[in-house]
Amino acid sequence: MGPGMAQLESFPNPHPGRDYTIEHTSSEFTSVCPKTGQPDFGTIRITYVPERLCVELKSLKLYLQAFRDQGIFYEDVINVILDDLVRATRPRTMTVEGRFSVRGGISSVVTASHASRPARSRKR
Amino acid sequence: MGPGMAQLESFPNPHPGRDYTIEHTSSEFTSVCPKTGQPDFGTIRITYVPERLCVELKSLKLYLQAFRDQGIFYEDVINVILDDLVRATRPRTMTVEGRFSVRGGISSVVTASHASRPARSRKR
Amino acid sequence: MGPGMAQLESFPNPHPGRDYTIEHTSSEFTSVCPKTGQPDFGTIRITYVPERLCVELKSLKLYLQAFRDQGIFYEDVINVILDDLVRATRPRTMTVEGRFSVRGGISSVVTASHASRPARSRKR
Amino acid sequence: MGPGMAQLESFPNPHPGRDYTIEHTSSEFTSVCPKTGQPDFGTIRITYVPERLCVELKSLKLYLQAFRDQGIFYEDVINVILDDLVRATRPRTMTVEGRFSVRGGISSVVTASHASRPARSRKR
Amino acid sequence: MGPGMAQLESFPNPHPGRDYTIEHTSSEFTSVCPKTGQPDFGTIRITYVPERLCVELKSLKLYLQAFRDQGIFYEDVINVILDDLVRATRPRTMTVEGRFSVRGGISSVVTASHASRPARSRKR
Amino acid sequence: MGPGMAQLESFPNPHPGRDYTIEHTSSEFTSVCPKTGQPDFGTIRITYVPERLCVELKSLKLYLQAFRDQGIFYEDVINVILDDLVRATRPRTMTVEGRFSVRGGISSVVTASHASRPARSRKR
Amino acid sequence: MGPGMAQLESFPNPHPGRDYTIEHTSSEFTSVCPKTGQPDFGTIRITYVPERLCVELKSLKLYLQAFRDQGIFYEDVINVILDDLVRATRPRTMTVEGRFSVRGGISSVVTASHASRPARSRKR
Amino acid sequence: MGPGMAQLESFPNPHPGRDYTIEHTSSEFTSVCPKTGQPDFGTIRITYVPERLCVELKSLKLYLQAFRDQGIFYEDVINVILDDLVRATRPRTMTVEGRFSVRGGISSVVTASHASRPARSRKR
Amino acid sequence: MGPGMAQLESFPNPHPGRDYTIEHTSSEFTSVCPKTGQPDFGTIRITYVPERLCVELKSLKLYLQAFRDQGIFYEDVINVILDDLVRATRPRTMTVEGRFSVRGGISSVVTASHASRPARSRKR
Amino acid sequence: MGPGMAQLESFPNPHPGRDYTIEHTSSEFTSVCPKTGQPDFGTIRITYVPERLCVELKSLKLYLQAFRDQGIFYEDVINVILDDLVRATRPRTMTVEGRFSVRGGISSVVTASHASRPARSRKR
Repeated sequence: MGPGMAQLESFPNPHPGRDYTIEHTSSEFTSVCPKTGQPDFGTIRITYVPERLCVELKSLKLYLQAFRDQGIFYEDVINVILDDLVRATRPRTMTVEGRFSVRGGISSVVTASHASRPARSRKR
Repeated sequence: MGPGMAQLESFPNPHPGRDYTIEHTSSEFTSVCPKTGQPDFGTIRITYVPERLCVELKSLKLYLQAFRDQGIFYEDVINVILDDLVRATRPRTMTVEGRFSVRGGISSVVTASHASRPARSRKR
Repeated sequence: MGPGMAQLESFPNPHPGRDYTIEHTSSEFTSVCPKTGQPDFGTIRITYVPERLCVELKSLKLYLQAFRDQGIFYEDVINVILDDLVRATRPRTMTVEGRFSVRGGISSVVTASHASRPARSRKR
Repeated sequence: MGPGMAQLESFPNPHPGRDYTIEHTSSEFTSVCPKTGQPDFGTIRITYVPERLCVELKSLKLYLQAFRDQGIFYEDVINVILDDLVRATRPRTMTVEGRFSVRGGISSVVTASHASRPARSRKR
Repeated sequence: MGPGMAQLESFPNPHPGRDYTIEHTSSEFTSVCPKTGQPDFGTIRITYVPERLCVELKSLKLYLQAFRDQGIFYEDVINVILDDLVRATRPRTMTVEGRFSVRGGISSVVTASHASRPARSRKR
Repeated sequence: MGPGMAQLESFPNPHPGRDYTIEHTSSEFTSVCPKTGQPDFGTIRITYVPERLCVELKSLKLYLQAFRDQGIFYEDVINVILDDLVRATRPRTMTVEGRFSVRGGISSVVTASHASRPARSRKR
Repeated sequence: MGPGMAQLESFPNPHPGRDYTIEHTSSEFTSVCPKTGQPDFGTIRITYVPERLCVELKSLKLYLQAFRDQGIFYEDVINVILDDLVRATRPRTMTVEGRFSVRGGISSVVTASHASRPARSRKR
Repeated sequence: MGPGMAQLESFPNPHPGRDYTIEHTSSEFTSVCPKTGQPDFGTIRITYVPERLCVELKSLKLYLQAFRDQGIFYEDVINVILDDLVRATRPRTMTVEGRFSVRGGISSVVTASHASRPARSRKR
Repeated sequence: MGPGMAQLESFPNPHPGRDYTIEHTSSEFTSVCPKTGQPDFGTIRITYVPERLCVELKSLKLYLQAFRDQGIFYEDVINVILDDLVRATRPRTMTVEGRFSVRGGISSVVTASHASRPARSRKR
Repeated sequence: MGPGMAQLESFPNPHPGRDYTIEHTSSEFTSVCPKTGQPDFGTIRITYVPERLCVELKSLKLYLQAFRDQGIFYEDVINVILDDLVRATRPRTMTVEGRFSVRGGISSVVTASHASRPARSRKR
């Protein structure tokens, strides 16, 4: 669970009768490498189809900021954010993508997805 | 319903026998955040396959301008525009996308679609 | 029918045994708005799979130039060009796309397609 | 004088002993055309060398937002912003640039500058 | 003299006490090659420091549109526009630049300037 | 057959047990228009899945250079290159794309593909 | 097998219950052409869905650096990297792409993929 | 003085007989807004002509990282970095530029310079 | 002297009373390396202030095309073009720039200028 | 002195009577960090006005390649290349610029210049 889980808030989806997509992108994500203690930087993109709840934007900002002093690997960051947002808003589908800065000459992207039911039956 | 609904006009589709696509993009959309009272800015893209009616371009401009003093959330803006344009022109399919400016270090995109009948039977 | 229909020429497809694609793009298209009398500007892209005939490039230039003094709406332009080119060259498939300049803060794209037989049986 | 002049605040320049440059850019400027009543959109860039005072960022946002319902020409906007900011902060030099959206197929840029004394004697 | 000279209008410079710069760019310029009769396309950028008069934007659009059926060389276009605008508004300085489309694999840019007095004594 | 067919060389595919993709792009292609005698310029992109043979890179360069004095139409160039490379290397699949320079204000792209067996059974 | 195979290390996948994607891109790859002895340069992108193991980032850097003095063809490089990483981490799926610098006016891209079982049954 | 001043290290300029320029750019700068407690993000570019000492790269990274928990305004950040680096390396000339993320719809750039003697006598 | 010198034509400068600038850019230049016999490719940009004569555009195209079979080094090409154009049109000032394709991993730009009199006395 | 100094060759400047500029850019430079033993990567740009000699392009490639196994700092690389090329060709002026890859989140550019006589008296 992310350190800012308590910050996450939601509000009722104003158009629950329709499948539509919401995407939030923050280019100001930073955490700490648990191995070296050095800061990591990245851009986090969250895309989801809401069911009954939408992510409140300001609370999302605070949730993401709470990783600032957290020692955590890239692979973990994305899965933790996905787990927390799924728990908080129960979306129909959700994808979280992180694009991380160059380390040792290598840039990295990690992407994880969640579907509330078998994707095949709901979406094209 | 959007505040400029009365402005929306249509004209007869000049080629109703063919499925073809029309896309209008306005990068001059502004409304007001209902929570903070601060102005929001975005780019709205409307893509549709007309049935009998096409959206008249100047009336679309006036319709979109009418949101200027409206307090409305991103998620709502896109669904309201989609509902209003569907009501006014009964398109075969229509998608409305809004790309909104950075707030709290986070940019947002909301996208909603409508199909007059099950998409599977009409489109590839 | 476009005003330059008489200009359109074709030549025999040099490789009729194979489905292949030809795309011509002109960024110098201009016509006149029938409502305001103001000039319109756009980029026209024509993509097709030839059957027995190919569009002759210089005649295509002259055909497109002939719209210069024509009063015609965006939605019409694209469908008329498609109809004329289909009539002149009987392609297996053809798509015409027009990207038009900003008017009233809104840019527009219109796209229409033709397939000589049900697309499903010919193409992937 | 701009309608938000009362909003403008300053704070003491923390390094008055050195000529250095501060640049603020807002891509969310909007006002109203006094002739047509239509909204105008633009990007405002303010560049200055502070003397004793710096422009407070949040107050600058509110100051620029106050033009939202103001009927004013491009040429005026830039000169008024320059006059107000010079009055509020007495900078060593200041430049205000506005890049405005396409109107009638024409985009416009207006730029005005102020120097507290003959530029030649102070700066290279 | 350009064919639309009668269209050009001006309005009083609202800030005559200050040297400031106005730039208008139209990417919708078209004229006719006097040699081949083929249409030419280009982007015209006009930059000036007003004295007592500013170019009225809508009249500038009509002035530029009037070249549509004019047979005229690139080198001439730019000098004629400069002469006409100088005559109409008597600016302190003015530059007209035209960027023309590819002809025979070659793209061209023509630029001409005017200063009401020796540039050296007025501007840095 | 292209004038440089004799130049084309191949080498054994070092990993024949796996379907993988090789793409070569030359932005230095030139031939001659058979109608006007004027030089044509383009970028050629060759993408293929090798079977037993790979195209040798230096021989490909010489093969493409041999078109330099050849009078040949765009539509022909691409099909001839495809035929020659298929004959020389018997790939599982191959696509040749040519993007040609602006002529008469129109740029052109021609694309042709080959599959050694029905694409459906081999590839997704 | 690549010369740096001994360098490759892995760590346990922290979220083995979910299919998610990891992508690492190094724009600092260099090896030696076995034919000419000249250095080659490229960008390597590795994309995979982990099963039980993830590639350790620093060890990946050292593994890729070990090609520096290796004489090896483009087609081989990509297949060897894929084989080595599959052997070291047993991913569900993996793709390795190399974009190589211009040689003889031609740039090249080689791409190879691996799936632990028939792709159809696991992935959409 | 910056919180990481103790981290800054230098090494002897290997070519002190020549005026040459060194530029270091970090796009991973973050500090805290002293007013709101919110994190700020920016890109810092340091350009200098060394005299006897050069900035050691790893120590520069640590020095910049030390601002991570520091409450400090944009205008201050740049002047403090400049003062610290001048103190540590006594360069012939040095410029520090910070480009900061959007806050309230406004992005900011702050730039400060230092010259060991009157710029006029040393540099062109 | 270039092989197409006989092709170069000029026409009278329509505005000889004013210093103005004409720029022609061809991205379709090709010649042959005198050492290796391999084709070279480049983009040639010619910028000049005409005195009494302007370069005729179509003749310029033919002049540049005549280098197609010419064995000539980069450094020579640019100086020869400059000499020929100066001889043919006697411009007030002229600059010729060539940007050549990558050879051996190195791209090259060669630039040469001519002024009819000491630049200092004519231009700022 | 660089390890490939013996490789550098020159040829007589074909137009010694004129000051003109030659620029060569290699994006394939690599050396080794003397501190960590890790490879460094960069782009080297060499700009010069030749006197009697020009740098031979192929020999320049070999000269730059010879740094591949050399342990050398960024600041040194640029000064050494400049010294070697000045010694080999005695240019009127020369500038060497290196743009190096990100290390520790910081990218670096080092630039050094040489003039055969005081720049002021030769060039504007």
